[in-house]
Amino acid sequence: MNDLKWSKAEKTIARRAFDIAYERECENLAGRLKDKAGSIKEPRDLWLVHDFLSEQLKRIEQKYDFRYSVLILVFALLLKEGWLKESDLAGISEDKMEKIRYLANPKH
Amino acid sequence: MNDLKWSKAEKTIARRAFDIAYERECENLAGRLKDKAGSIKEPRDLWLVHDFLSEQLKRIEQKYDFRYSVLILVFALLLKEGWLKESDLAGISEDKMEKIRYLANPKH
Repeated sequence: MNDLKWSKAEKTIARRAFDIAYERECENLAGRLKDKAGSIKEPRDLWLVHDFLSEQLKRIEQKYDFRYSVLILVFALLLKEGWLKESDLAGISEDKMEKIRYLANPKH
Repeated sequence: MNDLKWSKAEKTIARRAFDIAYERECENLAGRLKDKAGSIKEPRDLWLVHDFLSEQLKRIEQKYDFRYSVLILVFALLLKEGWLKESDLAGISEDKMEKIRYLANPKH
């Protein structure tokens, strides 16, 4: 995967798709956080919301890694989780898309 | 302050006041958290809300210490910060209340 070459155009598309997925996931998390904050009934719920947020932010920080050496894996995960649609990656070469689809398939 | 004796009745009043202050402060924090979660505009706000919540929970954990050796200080702080009113401590001996009031006064 380290051997894949990304053209200048592909790099631009990749960056845009990466940023879109990040925005979508963060927006979704903000919504879930708002719901959880609005459902707090007792003090211990504050700690549960904090644990939830810590875990989600850690996951996001670990996942959104734009190094080209791991980008195929990152896009596969984002596709699998629904933060990206294939159309968001339109313009990425077919050999890369095949790898992304293959890794995104839950059977593999 | 370690020499103060707490009667059984005072211990009951102290525990109730302590719990009431804790509930009030946690409820207030839940409201502030809800507002902040509802005001998230961009991804980085998620991290700011997380930092805010971490700091507030740490403050609460440090502050709410029911050991009788520190309880006068704790009540003074809760009075100063408005989580307790003097009436919540009705029944606590006057010598203890004097110490609590003295320490709660911002001038000291």
